[in-house]
Amino acid sequence: MSNAQVGIIMGSQSDLNIMEEAAKILKTFGITFEIRIISAHRAPDLLSEWSGSARERGMKVIIAGAGGAAHLPGVTAAFTTLPVIGVPVRSRISIDGWDSILSILQMPSGVPVATVALDAAKNAGILAAQIIGTHDEDVEKKLADFKVEMREKVIASGQELIDKGY
Amino acid sequence: MSNAQVGIIMGSQSDLNIMEEAAKILKTFGITFEIRIISAHRAPDLLSEWSGSARERGMKVIIAGAGGAAHLPGVTAAFTTLPVIGVPVRSRISIDGWDSILSILQMPSGVPVATVALDAAKNAGILAAQIIGTHDEDVEKKLADFKVEMREKVIASGQELIDKGY
Amino acid sequence: MSNAQVGIIMGSQSDLNIMEEAAKILKTFGITFEIRIISAHRAPDLLSEWSGSARERGMKVIIAGAGGAAHLPGVTAAFTTLPVIGVPVRSRISIDGWDSILSILQMPSGVPVATVALDAAKNAGILAAQIIGTHDEDVEKKLADFKVEMREKVIASGQELIDKGY
Amino acid sequence: MSNAQVGIIMGSQSDLNIMEEAAKILKTFGITFEIRIISAHRAPDLLSEWSGSARERGMKVIIAGAGGAAHLPGVTAAFTTLPVIGVPVRSRISIDGWDSILSILQMPSGVPVATVALDAAKNAGILAAQIIGTHDEDVEKKLADFKVEMREKVIASGQELIDKGY
Amino acid sequence: MSNAQVGIIMGSQSDLNIMEEAAKILKTFGITFEIRIISAHRAPDLLSEWSGSARERGMKVIIAGAGGAAHLPGVTAAFTTLPVIGVPVRSRISIDGWDSILSILQMPSGVPVATVALDAAKNAGILAAQIIGTHDEDVEKKLADFKVEMREKVIASGQELIDKGY
Amino acid sequence: MSNAQVGIIMGSQSDLNIMEEAAKILKTFGITFEIRIISAHRAPDLLSEWSGSARERGMKVIIAGAGGAAHLPGVTAAFTTLPVIGVPVRSRISIDGWDSILSILQMPSGVPVATVALDAAKNAGILAAQIIGTHDEDVEKKLADFKVEMREKVIASGQELIDKGY
Amino acid sequence: MSNAQVGIIMGSQSDLNIMEEAAKILKTFGITFEIRIISAHRAPDLLSEWSGSARERGMKVIIAGAGGAAHLPGVTAAFTTLPVIGVPVRSRISIDGWDSILSILQMPSGVPVATVALDAAKNAGILAAQIIGTHDEDVEKKLADFKVEMREKVIASGQELIDKGY
Amino acid sequence: MSNAQVGIIMGSQSDLNIMEEAAKILKTFGITFEIRIISAHRAPDLLSEWSGSARERGMKVIIAGAGGAAHLPGVTAAFTTLPVIGVPVRSRISIDGWDSILSILQMPSGVPVATVALDAAKNAGILAAQIIGTHDEDVEKKLADFKVEMREKVIASGQELIDKGY
Repeated sequence: MSNAQVGIIMGSQSDLNIMEEAAKILKTFGITFEIRIISAHRAPDLLSEWSGSARERGMKVIIAGAGGAAHLPGVTAAFTTLPVIGVPVRSRISIDGWDSILSILQMPSGVPVATVALDAAKNAGILAAQIIGTHDEDVEKKLADFKVEMREKVIASGQELIDKGY
Repeated sequence: MSNAQVGIIMGSQSDLNIMEEAAKILKTFGITFEIRIISAHRAPDLLSEWSGSARERGMKVIIAGAGGAAHLPGVTAAFTTLPVIGVPVRSRISIDGWDSILSILQMPSGVPVATVALDAAKNAGILAAQIIGTHDEDVEKKLADFKVEMREKVIASGQELIDKGY
Repeated sequence: MSNAQVGIIMGSQSDLNIMEEAAKILKTFGITFEIRIISAHRAPDLLSEWSGSARERGMKVIIAGAGGAAHLPGVTAAFTTLPVIGVPVRSRISIDGWDSILSILQMPSGVPVATVALDAAKNAGILAAQIIGTHDEDVEKKLADFKVEMREKVIASGQELIDKGY
Repeated sequence: MSNAQVGIIMGSQSDLNIMEEAAKILKTFGITFEIRIISAHRAPDLLSEWSGSARERGMKVIIAGAGGAAHLPGVTAAFTTLPVIGVPVRSRISIDGWDSILSILQMPSGVPVATVALDAAKNAGILAAQIIGTHDEDVEKKLADFKVEMREKVIASGQELIDKGY
Repeated sequence: MSNAQVGIIMGSQSDLNIMEEAAKILKTFGITFEIRIISAHRAPDLLSEWSGSARERGMKVIIAGAGGAAHLPGVTAAFTTLPVIGVPVRSRISIDGWDSILSILQMPSGVPVATVALDAAKNAGILAAQIIGTHDEDVEKKLADFKVEMREKVIASGQELIDKGY
Repeated sequence: MSNAQVGIIMGSQSDLNIMEEAAKILKTFGITFEIRIISAHRAPDLLSEWSGSARERGMKVIIAGAGGAAHLPGVTAAFTTLPVIGVPVRSRISIDGWDSILSILQMPSGVPVATVALDAAKNAGILAAQIIGTHDEDVEKKLADFKVEMREKVIASGQELIDKGY
Repeated sequence: MSNAQVGIIMGSQSDLNIMEEAAKILKTFGITFEIRIISAHRAPDLLSEWSGSARERGMKVIIAGAGGAAHLPGVTAAFTTLPVIGVPVRSRISIDGWDSILSILQMPSGVPVATVALDAAKNAGILAAQIIGTHDEDVEKKLADFKVEMREKVIASGQELIDKGY
Repeated sequence: MSNAQVGIIMGSQSDLNIMEEAAKILKTFGITFEIRIISAHRAPDLLSEWSGSARERGMKVIIAGAGGAAHLPGVTAAFTTLPVIGVPVRSRISIDGWDSILSILQMPSGVPVATVALDAAKNAGILAAQIIGTHDEDVEKKLADFKVEMREKVIASGQELIDKGY
């Protein structure tokens, strides 16, 4: 087991190409993470074990991605007091992502999942950084820089248009 | 623990008025059942314990009702080789039942849930009887009688209209 | 007529590539089946004949796949006391599968159809095996093995990730 | 059996308050009709008998209303070459009428159902009159008068507003 | 102007590849037709002229296809007492066909449109034939033959499967 | 005929309680208007006459409200070069407003309708004022005051909360 | 800063291929415009600055395109009394355009956005011309010519079909 | 200005009865908060001021509730590096909550909003506590107790059923 600040989990390796965007952005913020394949339906005992011990292993946030009847984020949230971020994945079986979104978002009272946009694993990583940044000035500084950078990029992109004569 | 043939579970007592329709129809077929409040999100360890031992306790079918991000039927199916019937409930939090339906129906490959119509606990009970009836001639006989009775009722209802002069 | 335990029916040969997944998984469980093209709209008399005699021919479960205004599973259920599993197919005419799902799932009181996920014929096969497995220890044993195998695969897939250094 | 020009059928008496709007408007056009409770799921043999003989009994059009997984109009169309008008009913089980609409409208190639708006039994009656009116000058004359009357009503309603000083 | 029994209209030539399916099936039933490009939004005066005189030109049925905010069928129905069949087209601008379906189907009281499935111009043609067939024994005979042929095709298709050893 | 700057039209008097919100807000901006019942389906000739002459009568903007298969705004736009604002009405027949929205919004290329939110006749009135305000300094001044007033109200409402001790 | 009559803004350069259709049609009407990349989420201060000064810079209409949680049109409308036209873009992240449409259309009372169809930037340009045309006879004349031209094209397209023998 | 750890904002006082559930649960966790009415559309300058200074005023998390075209959470997230939790409100104007959900959830890359279920302000409060609890052992302890309490309640509720003889 790693000493990761963020755990990134998904039910199957087919979601990895979406979910590794979370890992990439966390790396740019200098936040440690681990990626695991953990299934709520195929290995539920491992999920309870991994989730139930996440906090005592030093983890701060869990990011869980799933598609279709996407139970992984919600069941993870049942086993921990850590904030769980859910990424609805538009997987092969999914009906345009509606099933993924609704089965992650519409959690019952008492057990929230912080849901981000469809396939938005990068935003899940940023949100995890924001959560860590509430108590880590270094991460907060990087988030502020990231915001400045986004602003500059959008201005540059606009200037490019003006230069082209629009 | 009872010796019930069918287990009827739901995540909260607020679903009882819907779910007891399953119990009522099972009673008319002479099938034993138990009703339990078991939550995938609030007491997940009890769910795994109850579901994991259902078969060895003699149970044949599980009926699970849930609304919103309705994980109970799917997570139950993770713990047992028994057929699990899911009843999507149009609960207070639910968005017209769409979340309930999609998060029960759209299960990943390998872990099916036999989903019935929105709030259709009575049909869940009939389906459970049909499953038991595949190997129980007495139950099958009662199902055949039930079909005859439905037919007669619809014919009587039609005759009533004709008698009224339509 | 065969002595199949499971009947797999569909309205047109264009659904065969989806529906034969049910046959494949049934074969691995050692369950006999027959596949038939039977249309609720183009040959309704054959449907009533085939469905109405299924039980006395020794059948235990019927799996019916259909797309668009998908009436085959529901009309089949009208003619038999056997459990009918409905597979909503995302066929060419279908509106992203919504019509297929709703016209199979939302059956009236008294005539349930056990609906599985969109295009999930494999899960329909597993559900049929679970139904047979309620009274067949050999099948139940294979289902338990299947669950263990799924668990091992997901763990292996997770280990692969860890080995790659994630 | 009556000598009705139009047959109005529905699966249950609970749809009668909606469906009798079709009867009322047909009466104003001087078109004969019969109303029957006929269920595709509870008495399928009667449906095939009634539908299959409708043409030879002199019927010209069939109007079928149903809600939820609404199979009645489509299965009726399987048994006759008469035009079948489908009325999607927003019944108690229905999900805001979406299931009723899609399971009536989305018929496969070869077996059309002429679908009207949700709960629009009156429009179904008018459409039946239009079909009869293609070969019946008296009915056509009444339809033309009906159009004039609608026009006058909307003009009067507009004048009323003007008179009120809007 | 032709002496067509059926008028097939659409708002733009881009819908022709869908709509000519109606023409093809009408031809097999020996029913005459004309195809016209008539736009409710770009040449509304022509629409009122063409629709308003359709009956006196001997037309029996109008088939109108449109996509997006599909007003053509409904506005046509405003100008004639003939039955109007609407074909919702899944055109480039359309949102998966939902806009096309709802803006054709949900007509106000008094002005029905006989709506068929998404892109189902062939079914629109069959429905037009059924309407004409209510008073034309030759067409009715061809419709009955068409039904027999469909039945035989589906049986042959099923036999093919059996022959392959399924 | 009045000398109104804005024409407010609807297909039936039942939409008046929604649509008069447009009139009320226009009155506060000192903009003249007329309200008319004009139906695209019941009196299409009057619609073309009224719409076709609106500009020469001095009108600047047309607001058209409709529900269900809501063709009034789009067909109005076919007859005039004036901007047409469409108000989707959640009328009795409408499916939660979806049909109203899509049949107004999704207009084909060349014939736009400026669509506002469901039942948002007040916003339609404000938008009409904004259009007139592009060339009328007095109206623009009133719109600017209206914005200041909205801002003050929301601040006052917030202060009220603070005063209550939240 | 230009002296454009119309400002066309979008949140990212990836929407340019859609949005430049607005520019193209404005050019044919002889209306000046500027295109800018301005983001409600990445450079909100620039948006308030640009929108807040648009009127005093002589602008008459703003066209704002956005996809997903599309806040640009609505937030722009918060800063100006000019009419704001919103173009919902079916961008990569968007769920078939539903999110884009609803987050632009459903503005609260007091702050309207004139919404056009999905990806309908050309219609946004025409609507902007119609707004300018309410007080500019030259633009109005061009809009009337544009309508005539559309009419002629649809008639020519219809004639082409007739010539081909349909 | 208070020294609150959590800021709860909404666009209008009409959302207060939903949003104060967040305040109530925060109070039970001993977390300080302030509630403010701040509108993205009616007082956008105040929103940028309040959001932009939230972190330096010691705030850790912002909860923003909104309905319809719900821009408040997303625009807030544009002005701060703090985590923003969005509560989609099923307000009067909203279309069953779909607009509220999609316009909060589907944020573009770079600016996440942690979305919870429809009207789930209580869950927003719990999520805020979980975020604070990542670095505050006292809060974490209370969250763990809250989980135990939920578990006990569900068990008691189940026992009650058993005692009643189900």
